[in-house]
Amino acid sequence: MDEMTQRVVSFVRQRDWEQFHNPKDLAVSLTLEAAEVLEHFQWKDSAEIKKHLKDSKTAVAEELCDVLYWVLLMSHYFGIDLKSEFDAKMDQNEKKYPLDKAKGRHDKYTAYQG
Amino acid sequence: MDEMTQRVVSFVRQRDWEQFHNPKDLAVSLTLEAAEVLEHFQWKDSAEIKKHLKDSKTAVAEELCDVLYWVLLMSHYFGIDLKSEFDAKMDQNEKKYPLDKAKGRHDKYTAYQG
Amino acid sequence: MDEMTQRVVSFVRQRDWEQFHNPKDLAVSLTLEAAEVLEHFQWKDSAEIKKHLKDSKTAVAEELCDVLYWVLLMSHYFGIDLKSEFDAKMDQNEKKYPLDKAKGRHDKYTAYQG
Amino acid sequence: MDEMTQRVVSFVRQRDWEQFHNPKDLAVSLTLEAAEVLEHFQWKDSAEIKKHLKDSKTAVAEELCDVLYWVLLMSHYFGIDLKSEFDAKMDQNEKKYPLDKAKGRHDKYTAYQG
Repeated sequence: MDEMTQRVVSFVRQRDWEQFHNPKDLAVSLTLEAAEVLEHFQWKDSAEIKKHLKDSKTAVAEELCDVLYWVLLMSHYFGIDLKSEFDAKMDQNEKKYPLDKAKGRHDKYTAYQG
Repeated sequence: MDEMTQRVVSFVRQRDWEQFHNPKDLAVSLTLEAAEVLEHFQWKDSAEIKKHLKDSKTAVAEELCDVLYWVLLMSHYFGIDLKSEFDAKMDQNEKKYPLDKAKGRHDKYTAYQG
Repeated sequence: MDEMTQRVVSFVRQRDWEQFHNPKDLAVSLTLEAAEVLEHFQWKDSAEIKKHLKDSKTAVAEELCDVLYWVLLMSHYFGIDLKSEFDAKMDQNEKKYPLDKAKGRHDKYTAYQG
Repeated sequence: MDEMTQRVVSFVRQRDWEQFHNPKDLAVSLTLEAAEVLEHFQWKDSAEIKKHLKDSKTAVAEELCDVLYWVLLMSHYFGIDLKSEFDAKMDQNEKKYPLDKAKGRHDKYTAYQG
């Protein structure tokens, strides 16, 4: 993870792009890239999606990487230690959805919004 | 990264939630979590955002972790090796935005959509 | 439509809120409200959605109205005659998807992104 | 409004596209079109946005019309009387943001999420 963040930060610094990276536009970019992931699944039923994920796996992977790019870069700019925050969030999730109550429960699940 | 993916996958498996995770809803979740990140920056000017990132850093971090959660989980389900795909995408980015042309260039930059 | 726009504009003016309405944040608001519509359909299969649209029709309607609110307000601020632009866009759509080629065609349809 | 809805519904019916219009994908389409509006304002400061709204007014208008297209179509499918729901929602907004408290208030304003 650190290595990936380092690569993104170097990429941006070498191009002198930090000047354009205000937080609001970073967040907009994150949202637009997520929308590009979503677009891959629009108007497709289960079978078509299965086929699409086989035929266009790299294209989908690239969109997920674009989302990750902004997650890493935002974390860097905002001074967020993503690894340790992620562990803390997963600790929370485990408490919020205890095994005995959440297991196989759709209703518990649908309540999950992170 | 692998460790984080393992944690997400275990979390989901232990709760028997794989049955709910169709690709379209995963992509919807990713988009909705990105929107929750964006919401933190809505209706705020630069000074207000700076203050917000200081006062609510953990809240913003948690939303970024939620986005990451879905990126990791989708990559797992779709059989995507995120680390190696990310490196390949960064290789592409470096070719697409060569230093001598992209450096400090807003126009080049704005063309970047991943 | 004009009447609805008038109501939105009066509502905003009376509260002296025009000062906060920069175009980027208006567009962010539109996106976030659309995400709130989408959230109603997340993690639900066809039967659950049918039930939800029956039980929570007003809630869904309110989210659609929130989207419409920003469409009307943005059009007002940007000097866009929404009715005439809409007619022009539908003219385009009709040419882009001629009856003899687009009828019942999923592939034609999936290409539609507006 | 009714006239616009009629036009959208006829357009869809003539092409026999109702079969593809499940609610989840309609909501996805709405979200993706809103993202396309947002994209127009990404990485632009106030001056650049002003220029863009002058130079590309029609392009922005078309994206807003695409959002409206889905709002009208979803309302039609879900049996929502958009005009009357909109009036009801504005009644609510007026009560939620009374003039004496909301006027010129940024904090009241930022609380507005519809």
